[in-house]
Amino acid sequence: MFTLEELARRLGCEFRGEATRQLAGLGTLSGAGSNQLSFLSNRKYLRQLDETGAGAVILHPEHAPSCPVDCLLSETPYLTFARATALFDTAPQVAAGVHAHATVSPDAEVHTSASVAAGAVIDAGAVVGEGAVIGARCYVGHDSYVGPRSRLYPGVVLYHDVRIGADCIVHANAVIGADGFGFAPSDHGWEKLHQTGGVRIGDRVEIGACTTIDRGAIEHTVLEDGVIVDNQVQIAHNCRIGKNTAIAGCTGLAGSTIIGRNCTLAGAVGVVGHLEICDNVHVTAMTLVTRSITQPGSYSSGTPMLESRQWRRNAVRFGHLDAIQKRLAALEKPTQS
Amino acid sequence: MFTLEELARRLGCEFRGEATRQLAGLGTLSGAGSNQLSFLSNRKYLRQLDETGAGAVILHPEHAPSCPVDCLLSETPYLTFARATALFDTAPQVAAGVHAHATVSPDAEVHTSASVAAGAVIDAGAVVGEGAVIGARCYVGHDSYVGPRSRLYPGVVLYHDVRIGADCIVHANAVIGADGFGFAPSDHGWEKLHQTGGVRIGDRVEIGACTTIDRGAIEHTVLEDGVIVDNQVQIAHNCRIGKNTAIAGCTGLAGSTIIGRNCTLAGAVGVVGHLEICDNVHVTAMTLVTRSITQPGSYSSGTPMLESRQWRRNAVRFGHLDAIQKRLAALEKPTQS
Amino acid sequence: MFTLEELARRLGCEFRGEATRQLAGLGTLSGAGSNQLSFLSNRKYLRQLDETGAGAVILHPEHAPSCPVDCLLSETPYLTFARATALFDTAPQVAAGVHAHATVSPDAEVHTSASVAAGAVIDAGAVVGEGAVIGARCYVGHDSYVGPRSRLYPGVVLYHDVRIGADCIVHANAVIGADGFGFAPSDHGWEKLHQTGGVRIGDRVEIGACTTIDRGAIEHTVLEDGVIVDNQVQIAHNCRIGKNTAIAGCTGLAGSTIIGRNCTLAGAVGVVGHLEICDNVHVTAMTLVTRSITQPGSYSSGTPMLESRQWRRNAVRFGHLDAIQKRLAALEKPTQS
Repeated sequence: MFTLEELARRLGCEFRGEATRQLAGLGTLSGAGSNQLSFLSNRKYLRQLDETGAGAVILHPEHAPSCPVDCLLSETPYLTFARATALFDTAPQVAAGVHAHATVSPDAEVHTSASVAAGAVIDAGAVVGEGAVIGARCYVGHDSYVGPRSRLYPGVVLYHDVRIGADCIVHANAVIGADGFGFAPSDHGWEKLHQTGGVRIGDRVEIGACTTIDRGAIEHTVLEDGVIVDNQVQIAHNCRIGKNTAIAGCTGLAGSTIIGRNCTLAGAVGVVGHLEICDNVHVTAMTLVTRSITQPGSYSSGTPMLESRQWRRNAVRFGHLDAIQKRLAALEKPTQS
Repeated sequence: MFTLEELARRLGCEFRGEATRQLAGLGTLSGAGSNQLSFLSNRKYLRQLDETGAGAVILHPEHAPSCPVDCLLSETPYLTFARATALFDTAPQVAAGVHAHATVSPDAEVHTSASVAAGAVIDAGAVVGEGAVIGARCYVGHDSYVGPRSRLYPGVVLYHDVRIGADCIVHANAVIGADGFGFAPSDHGWEKLHQTGGVRIGDRVEIGACTTIDRGAIEHTVLEDGVIVDNQVQIAHNCRIGKNTAIAGCTGLAGSTIIGRNCTLAGAVGVVGHLEICDNVHVTAMTLVTRSITQPGSYSSGTPMLESRQWRRNAVRFGHLDAIQKRLAALEKPTQS
Repeated sequence: MFTLEELARRLGCEFRGEATRQLAGLGTLSGAGSNQLSFLSNRKYLRQLDETGAGAVILHPEHAPSCPVDCLLSETPYLTFARATALFDTAPQVAAGVHAHATVSPDAEVHTSASVAAGAVIDAGAVVGEGAVIGARCYVGHDSYVGPRSRLYPGVVLYHDVRIGADCIVHANAVIGADGFGFAPSDHGWEKLHQTGGVRIGDRVEIGACTTIDRGAIEHTVLEDGVIVDNQVQIAHNCRIGKNTAIAGCTGLAGSTIIGRNCTLAGAVGVVGHLEICDNVHVTAMTLVTRSITQPGSYSSGTPMLESRQWRRNAVRFGHLDAIQKRLAALEKPTQS
């Protein structure tokens, strides 16, 4: 519970309206009640502003005149709202200490301010830093490291020699450091390449639920500071992801993919192995990246969605494209006369 | 073990053949032995009926004359067979009670008829309903709720404020209630939007292994009654899935996707965020839904599979399509004479 | 730590250089130091060989003359390097015995040489073979079987009636034996087909992290000997995967897919259900297999990646392909004169 004035102070905004108004939570423009804080960052919702029942709205100064309720002014309303969500976070608090039902190796090191929940297993040589939170039934492997204030949600598995920096979040059932998919063909089938590299994850990285990040074959797999990765993403051995790059759900990166800084990969993107993507690249959903990208910009593959009958009628012509091109060229040739 | 007559009674069918025939299990038409029950629901397997060694077959009355063995008659043989599978289910029974190696918060509430297996962790404020089954090493977060007769298989993680209705099944290592992928760009990188909504799951919902369903950003993520979701599906924050909709494996829904009732999404479908799909829509496998769908029907994207050399020859023309269209238009223009 | 001579002996190679050179680990050609072993298997890295700081390099005899450091000679350098990785593996050793914090049913059978880690749960009727390793917090269901020397990494879930052969590896949080996605439509929604088959996995199979392999509906789901499966793969009920077939990450196989021997499915491939793929087929990344494949070879679908503006201009013509074909045919028709 905050007053409007207190919120303005904490968020570094000016406000318009009743300083003592009590705000107890967050709401959408269309759903918020009079003790809730909302925000407007997209003009497309301007009409919802007219009818909002929110107690106050974070918005750009240009929209203040049309706001029917109290407001907090921000040049970057979405970012200011992000900071407000931290104030109103509903996630339960976690107490420091090792739960009686956790299993911590005598050769592991857990900071006294860290929290280790029931069922967690911390193996020999592992280090859990100051204020870190190891959720229920997590596994932290030999010689792995969880940095200060980083949090593993329940069921996360860190294999051996995995290093997580400070202020990271790893969501439930993610797996970091499993063997990369490295096999050599032989006359008797596949022979495994034991994966002797580790994983190095920077600071302020967030990793989604059921995401998998494999250990390196020889050198490490690396995620730099500020990288954010959604759920169900697969990052293969020896990938390197540059600072502040964002990877949306269900994306798969094959081995040794190098991605620059400030890239955004939309959902279900695939990247074929041993490619390099430069800084500031955006890849649209379900695109298959089949060659290195050396120019910043936006890239796509695939075909538009159609009603299935219409799709079939056209799709069957895809296999005739080369013939179509040749027939067209023949028609264009000046008739010999 | 049932007699043919007993089965007919339980399944609400008429039967043809020996009332006292003993049936001990299920089999396919081609694989079943004389003490097994099989079914025919697809004409394409009619030939297998001729040679079946099954003890009895569930089939449509029109096929009874050509059935060489005993049979159970049903207008909907596949549905009747589904009901028969419940009678012959081989899954082990589960005893009520909390296992000595489970960790249940003194502030949680577990019904006396519920079962909580070894290694499970039930946090403060959580409620486990009548006859519910919490598998080995599941985690049920603060203030979450598992409804009557619902079952979580081993390793499932429910974050805080997740509500599962009655008679649901959640398969192993699924994660419900992880943070949605919400971040605001700032000069210093991404700032997290704390996700303060929860997840609301109706009755008779089934959720596949390693599937992830994120909590809402502000309001809840919702799956209505009777929804079925396969393995490895990603459902982002604030999606709403309508009653009896089916979602096949590896599908990914971006944030705030609204899907109507009785839809079927085939495998590996992608849905771009903030779209709406009306009732009774079918989307074919690996389609990317890039716009809202307002008419019932079937929708597709992608290209047909070809032998790779042939594919390459044609695919290279995809980037010439606009030029092809223009060249064609030029040829069609009546020659100025 | 091995001498060059000792390595040559163990790998069955000849060597060139100093027999007593000490090699303590592995490195890439460009990154290795003087006490590390590297390899050259791809001509494209020949230039890196010139400048390598490695202590020794495994390479084909034809490259020995241009190698500036000691070398081990192999007709198949990549395979020889794979064998070297086993000698230098850094994974921690595991001690035999059942951890005090594991939960083993009195009706389960665990070989005295096997290892069961903290938090693991072994249910009634399960068998854990000689030298097998059950990682922290794994679940082995009723009557399931883990063969000799097979290893489950932390968090793996085996449902009941799942059989894993000898010398297998299953990576963290994989789920084997969850219910297949089988439902019959009824007037009241979907009715579940209880899945009464199991899963049968051969010898020397490797399964990736967060991969899911469903149990069979009636008969078993089967992976033959030597199959390798990457992370985040979904294998639906009643699939059969032939010997030594490799399946890369994020691939999804729908129900009853039959795949032959020695196939390779690249990443994010989809296979529509009830199809058959013959031996020695390669499918390129993100291809949707929509019909059975009866000829060995390589198969593809999709479109090439383009810069997004260029992509949009061309993609919009995809829905005009049939019309383009008809317009072209009209132009080709000899003018009636």
